[in-house]
Amino acid sequence: MRCGQGIEARQVDELFINIDPIQAAGRLTGDAMKAVIAYGDGYSVCDNCRKPNRLDYIAKPPIAEFHKDVAKWLNMDAVRTVPGARRGFQAVAQTYVKKGDPVLLTSLSHYTEFMAVEGAGGIAREIPVGDDKRVTPDAAAAKIEEVKREFGRAPVLAFIDHVDYQYGNIHDVAAIAKVAHQYDIPVVYNGAYTVGVMPVDGKALGVDFVVGSGHKSMAAPAPSGILAATAERENEVFRTTAIEGDVTKRRFGIKEPEMMGCTLMGVTLVGMMASFPHVKERTLHFDRELANHHVVMDALLSIEGTTCMSEYPRKHTMTRINTIESFDTVAETHKKRGYYLQSALEERGITGIIPGATKIWKFNTYGTTKKQAEHLAGAFVEIARENGLTVRE
Amino acid sequence: MRCGQGIEARQVDELFINIDPIQAAGRLTGDAMKAVIAYGDGYSVCDNCRKPNRLDYIAKPPIAEFHKDVAKWLNMDAVRTVPGARRGFQAVAQTYVKKGDPVLLTSLSHYTEFMAVEGAGGIAREIPVGDDKRVTPDAAAAKIEEVKREFGRAPVLAFIDHVDYQYGNIHDVAAIAKVAHQYDIPVVYNGAYTVGVMPVDGKALGVDFVVGSGHKSMAAPAPSGILAATAERENEVFRTTAIEGDVTKRRFGIKEPEMMGCTLMGVTLVGMMASFPHVKERTLHFDRELANHHVVMDALLSIEGTTCMSEYPRKHTMTRINTIESFDTVAETHKKRGYYLQSALEERGITGIIPGATKIWKFNTYGTTKKQAEHLAGAFVEIARENGLTVRE
Repeated sequence: MRCGQGIEARQVDELFINIDPIQAAGRLTGDAMKAVIAYGDGYSVCDNCRKPNRLDYIAKPPIAEFHKDVAKWLNMDAVRTVPGARRGFQAVAQTYVKKGDPVLLTSLSHYTEFMAVEGAGGIAREIPVGDDKRVTPDAAAAKIEEVKREFGRAPVLAFIDHVDYQYGNIHDVAAIAKVAHQYDIPVVYNGAYTVGVMPVDGKALGVDFVVGSGHKSMAAPAPSGILAATAERENEVFRTTAIEGDVTKRRFGIKEPEMMGCTLMGVTLVGMMASFPHVKERTLHFDRELANHHVVMDALLSIEGTTCMSEYPRKHTMTRINTIESFDTVAETHKKRGYYLQSALEERGITGIIPGATKIWKFNTYGTTKKQAEHLAGAFVEIARENGLTVRE
Repeated sequence: MRCGQGIEARQVDELFINIDPIQAAGRLTGDAMKAVIAYGDGYSVCDNCRKPNRLDYIAKPPIAEFHKDVAKWLNMDAVRTVPGARRGFQAVAQTYVKKGDPVLLTSLSHYTEFMAVEGAGGIAREIPVGDDKRVTPDAAAAKIEEVKREFGRAPVLAFIDHVDYQYGNIHDVAAIAKVAHQYDIPVVYNGAYTVGVMPVDGKALGVDFVVGSGHKSMAAPAPSGILAATAERENEVFRTTAIEGDVTKRRFGIKEPEMMGCTLMGVTLVGMMASFPHVKERTLHFDRELANHHVVMDALLSIEGTTCMSEYPRKHTMTRINTIESFDTVAETHKKRGYYLQSALEERGITGIIPGATKIWKFNTYGTTKKQAEHLAGAFVEIARENGLTVRE
């Protein structure tokens, strides 16, 4: 089935249980799908754009209200939508980082934070992580002191991922932010794996900015995301334009240069808005998601030789698993080589693991029902048994 | 009909002939609509992302091929997709403009170009336009000389809109680019109103960059667009990342900092791709669009007191019209005040004019059929007559 010249219609989430680490929490809700159809056209949300002509002031569809609701939900003071979390990082980096400035990241920071730092001319300095793959406030303090010795000044900005993309571990952002603030370093909370998935309270975390990803964790089309700021910081990153045309003397009202004016004009924004009530609700039930995740983890860890590389017990549904001593031993002699695992999973209606991966891989059970989690658990055990691996009862 | 809590389903382009100046050429094609449904989920295009893990290398759906096709179509050497034309401007500005650098714009430049210049710390210098509202190479040369006197150096970058957003006039980009190149100024061609609407040949124009808007003129969802570069410039704006993690020694492969890594992960990109064959074809028939536009223009100009503020005869389907001496004279006494015009148009199945506007307004007939153009023409004349305005036969 095609949806355009040479473009096969995608049916991954219709035909399979999808445990792709980055796709699981981005799947559209039914309402988002309807919104996508109704607001597909480019400038679809601009029908009722009136003065002062800025996206976040539009009342119909209720974009202005959505901005307020998201700010309240995150317990922050101001929110803008952005074309992906990365564009939120970029806006903050461009505001605070000048050429040669040190910026604090962590050894588990996502590459898009590095891109934001590089784009602004900053120099990356990573907080090291311990053997437990967690970022601690002590390590943050030590790194800041190290940066001070190296640069003669503290980092100008810190990016801290609440849940990192490599292990899905939870890091103590509140304590790290407290340390950073002792050095007057503004803190960006990277909530790409949390905002839309579990409750996030910006004020309780004590961060200056909260960044969320629409397409990663808010059941929204790509590219979409949000950037939230405290009242103290909003006038910095969301400052309005000051440039003027020298001939026409034109000025550009309340447009914000870091946002490049308006941000998400159509399907991305309305998709995010349509999913929002469902997303808000689902964050209150993250315990159920974790319970389902543990059903799958228990099964995986019952396969001898399998180890969990993420913190354990799991506090997030995205996990890094090591099957070098289990599934990978089969790959050596299997006629499908390393592809047998993916193939056996697909036969059971499961997808989302990197094809050929049998050593170290990640998966995310977010959004699965209990029944689906049990099916996943059963599938892993069955495939292990079929291939002669030992499964503990 | 709702498509989510508090969100009315939009039916503007289903129920009306829409002559909104910015929406007309962004309406999705049937294939784009299908693609939007099939690829609604966030990371939908990433199912088959393999090493080197960059969006424009993905073969299925045929994203890599699309990038090559667009480059060829524009007669440029390299193309990337971006979340809106403005993000293309931003990438180029961040590459060439440093704090305090003068940047050449025009008195008709779009505000997003100013945002890009401001974000990079540049200073805007506008080429003035004559009474005919056109930017000439002579005026460009004079302005560059003026900037040299003021700053002691030429502008570091020039943004030239081929068709401006204010009048829809066509400006002689090729001649202006020639002048700019005499001063070694790289030229960004703003094709927000041309790429996807009429043929664009980057090499013939002699520009360094071509920027197009997916949601304005390529029948794609928002935010989307393209940034094309010549072989000479591609390694500058599309340079790969050089940043490194000091602890982990991580580097980030061939990710491009000005693109913030990958750009359009889902619905926006596939929508643009699905529309592309149709968009390519339609640019070959811009003459038909102009013929239809002239049917409407003839009708409007037959209403006594109405004048065309854009260049005339029209060379683009987006036009600025002055009805102060015609439709606006009715508004003074009409019980609906200035809203009567919009109201009368809507009764006839026409929408897209700013509500209440009867003085100076813009409209775009792009994509109307001959029959629709005749209906539009008839509607304007009929409304004029009904309200006692004189219509020349």
